[in-house]
Amino acid sequence: MNGMNPPYGFLADRYELAMAWAYWRDGRAREPVVFDYFFRKLPCESGYALAAGFPVLAELLEEFAYDDGQLARLEQDGFAADFLEALRTFRFQGSVQAMVEGEVVFPLEPVLRVEGGLMEAQLVETLVLNVLNFQTLIATKAARCRQAAGGRGLSEFGLRRAQGMGGHWASRAACVGGFDTTSNLAAALAFGLRASGTMAHSYIQSYPSELAAFRRYAAVHGSNTILLLDTYDTLASGLPNALQVAGELKARGESLAGVRLDSGDLAYLARRVRSELDAAGFNEVRIVASNQLDEHVIRSLVSQEAPIDLFGLGTSIAVGQPDGALDGIYKLAQVGETPCLKLSENPAKTSLPGRKQVTRYRDEDGRFVADAIHTADESEMRRMIHPFAPAKQLDLTHLTGETLLHPLMEKGRRVLPAVSISKSADHARRRLRHLPDEHRRFENPHVYKVGLSEKLHALREKLITQYRNRLQR
Amino acid sequence: MNGMNPPYGFLADRYELAMAWAYWRDGRAREPVVFDYFFRKLPCESGYALAAGFPVLAELLEEFAYDDGQLARLEQDGFAADFLEALRTFRFQGSVQAMVEGEVVFPLEPVLRVEGGLMEAQLVETLVLNVLNFQTLIATKAARCRQAAGGRGLSEFGLRRAQGMGGHWASRAACVGGFDTTSNLAAALAFGLRASGTMAHSYIQSYPSELAAFRRYAAVHGSNTILLLDTYDTLASGLPNALQVAGELKARGESLAGVRLDSGDLAYLARRVRSELDAAGFNEVRIVASNQLDEHVIRSLVSQEAPIDLFGLGTSIAVGQPDGALDGIYKLAQVGETPCLKLSENPAKTSLPGRKQVTRYRDEDGRFVADAIHTADESEMRRMIHPFAPAKQLDLTHLTGETLLHPLMEKGRRVLPAVSISKSADHARRRLRHLPDEHRRFENPHVYKVGLSEKLHALREKLITQYRNRLQR
Repeated sequence: MNGMNPPYGFLADRYELAMAWAYWRDGRAREPVVFDYFFRKLPCESGYALAAGFPVLAELLEEFAYDDGQLARLEQDGFAADFLEALRTFRFQGSVQAMVEGEVVFPLEPVLRVEGGLMEAQLVETLVLNVLNFQTLIATKAARCRQAAGGRGLSEFGLRRAQGMGGHWASRAACVGGFDTTSNLAAALAFGLRASGTMAHSYIQSYPSELAAFRRYAAVHGSNTILLLDTYDTLASGLPNALQVAGELKARGESLAGVRLDSGDLAYLARRVRSELDAAGFNEVRIVASNQLDEHVIRSLVSQEAPIDLFGLGTSIAVGQPDGALDGIYKLAQVGETPCLKLSENPAKTSLPGRKQVTRYRDEDGRFVADAIHTADESEMRRMIHPFAPAKQLDLTHLTGETLLHPLMEKGRRVLPAVSISKSADHARRRLRHLPDEHRRFENPHVYKVGLSEKLHALREKLITQYRNRLQR
Repeated sequence: MNGMNPPYGFLADRYELAMAWAYWRDGRAREPVVFDYFFRKLPCESGYALAAGFPVLAELLEEFAYDDGQLARLEQDGFAADFLEALRTFRFQGSVQAMVEGEVVFPLEPVLRVEGGLMEAQLVETLVLNVLNFQTLIATKAARCRQAAGGRGLSEFGLRRAQGMGGHWASRAACVGGFDTTSNLAAALAFGLRASGTMAHSYIQSYPSELAAFRRYAAVHGSNTILLLDTYDTLASGLPNALQVAGELKARGESLAGVRLDSGDLAYLARRVRSELDAAGFNEVRIVASNQLDEHVIRSLVSQEAPIDLFGLGTSIAVGQPDGALDGIYKLAQVGETPCLKLSENPAKTSLPGRKQVTRYRDEDGRFVADAIHTADESEMRRMIHPFAPAKQLDLTHLTGETLLHPLMEKGRRVLPAVSISKSADHARRRLRHLPDEHRRFENPHVYKVGLSEKLHALREKLITQYRNRLQR
């Protein structure tokens, strides 16, 4: 039904196949090319993005192939039998360089580079974009939520409002970006995430009284019990019943884990609930808050010092509101040994030619200062040039560089051992600590410097002139 | 990797399992209950929604179960062995009533009703919400695009910006809502959709010249060729080269299918391109336009009489911008023979009790006038009552009613034969024709009347009073 089982060759736009057929017919299938994945605009008003999805992508690329049903469909659609025979044994055998999962990344810089034959590199375009665009969007949003929440707990439970099976990777990427747990069982199992959850209003409604429901739940879940307070009335009913059950748990040597607020003024209710819990000696009972939360509401609640221990987020994190999509693209940068680019009337949309690498420059305190995009054979850059305003240049000589693109796949196989999501989340957290505050600012963050090496700049200028001259002939 | 293969029991929030365990422990697993799926707010500023996803949901529910890996994970998470033994043989055996795929629906009315044991009806909650929320969102957005496009072609190609595997159902729902084709091969194969596609800029860049690229593509694709014009310069390069290839195709008895505009001022370019194509005798060559289109841009282009034959939409349709999610919910309405509701300080959020049906009332011309939500045993309603302002009533005696909820599953098995997507799209189109213009208006549509039968209204009032009295004791 979901059609998403391997082989994954059909996770593609039809035009990839249409082009592949033409390449193959021209004998160009194995002509070596370089494609870059990058994005132009940061999502969610953020000053940075967290790149995510590489391990998922690598796994799907290893299983990228076509089965009989898919080939039969292409035949029906008019594809030639000899081309389909070639597809029958097709495997992705290219090489992929990528940033580390959870890396802090910026517009324009190649976040992933595919090198391989023209046909294979084209066929995987849609898959590359689909996996990286969405997970980078969600990891970035999650990092902002983590920033807003500080050390408080963050739980993702958006599967019910997620975009169908998209919820699966949403939960994964949310945890890369700093969420502690997810409600999503399938994602928890697939990616080794911590699963969490409380109870629904329906649970409470199904019993003759709220107190009966609380008691029966606590009888089964003991010290893991989190009680939902607002089915009838948070302060008039939910809280007194929760206090009652907290006492009963205590009497048998257990303790209520928490209570959940899911409507009303969360700051006001949290204070009232905290004060009554504390007055009754239940200081250890945590307060969970949910209901249309996002990074802005969390920040507001934290700045009001609302005594909330854990935030539960649904829709906003699962679908990456308000953007809903990252505008990442996959551009051809080189054919054989010839760098190429895509012109545009908008200079910001003219692509960067050639095999490229990204070097991040840090100051003596390790803080990130700027990223330089350069040709892959360069290592010593003295300065970098603004991508659209070449008069603006940055001296790099006092800074320490580290390259950001590392091998992910070689000859179609993964070369990196699996890394746990919590390790990727740790990486993201550590890296963000080196990003100066002005770029992490919540509103109107300062633009982080991304530039071109002199050599790459010159190459681009040369090609632009060449292309324009050709047009005028 | 994607973790989305059957059995589908883990397409669930963890709390469904936590509640199920408590129900089961209390011997209440098979206690008969009724749950409703409905939403409160129309998406995308629309005056109506198109309900979609029912056949997908029914298929997933038939395969809703737990496998060994899932049970092992639950055991690790502390679930009791005897409960997990019960889950091992669990199957959804409930009954489901639903609207027809592609039905025109409105806030508050039950769009789907699940009846079954307390445990099974609870366990499927997340899945019901995930499938129906997303597909209803996209089908609704698609219907508005269709409205804007009139008889022109509509193609969905958003997989690259879709929310991961969410793109699969996005393509399906877009076609239910009126799109003609999708670029998404996996979805086309799974759901019997028409697949379409042109070429990418990379295809053209990979050849020494644009003309060479166009010629080679046309050599393979003949009369199916659609040429992308803006890789270098739409009017200075793309168009003359396309005219050249159109002539070459004609000379060998074929004909260029179309050209695609993907940047710049689409209205201006379409007019220029149309006029040059026509002047050269290529009246049959169609103009395809893409680049950040949505229903508003389409409407603007159509109102400018831009000679565009087919619109290609990516991000906006695949992720349902600007909303990104529909707020559908799944509420317990009855336990045994006892109707119940969820109170809220916001009267609009108090749920509707009992086993319910929806009757649509039409005037003598067949136009939709109002929908009445009523108890399932009522058939003759004389009037309906506004859900929140009971003084507002509507006389139904001159109108003809038709019930909207029909059996979808009985005892866990589908009872409806499979219906093609194009039949569902036809249904949607036919039904929308009966919806008066004021509700289909693009901006600020008039609110369609949805009310309660007198009996349902009285039942809700009685329960509210009962619950409030209980709280005050």
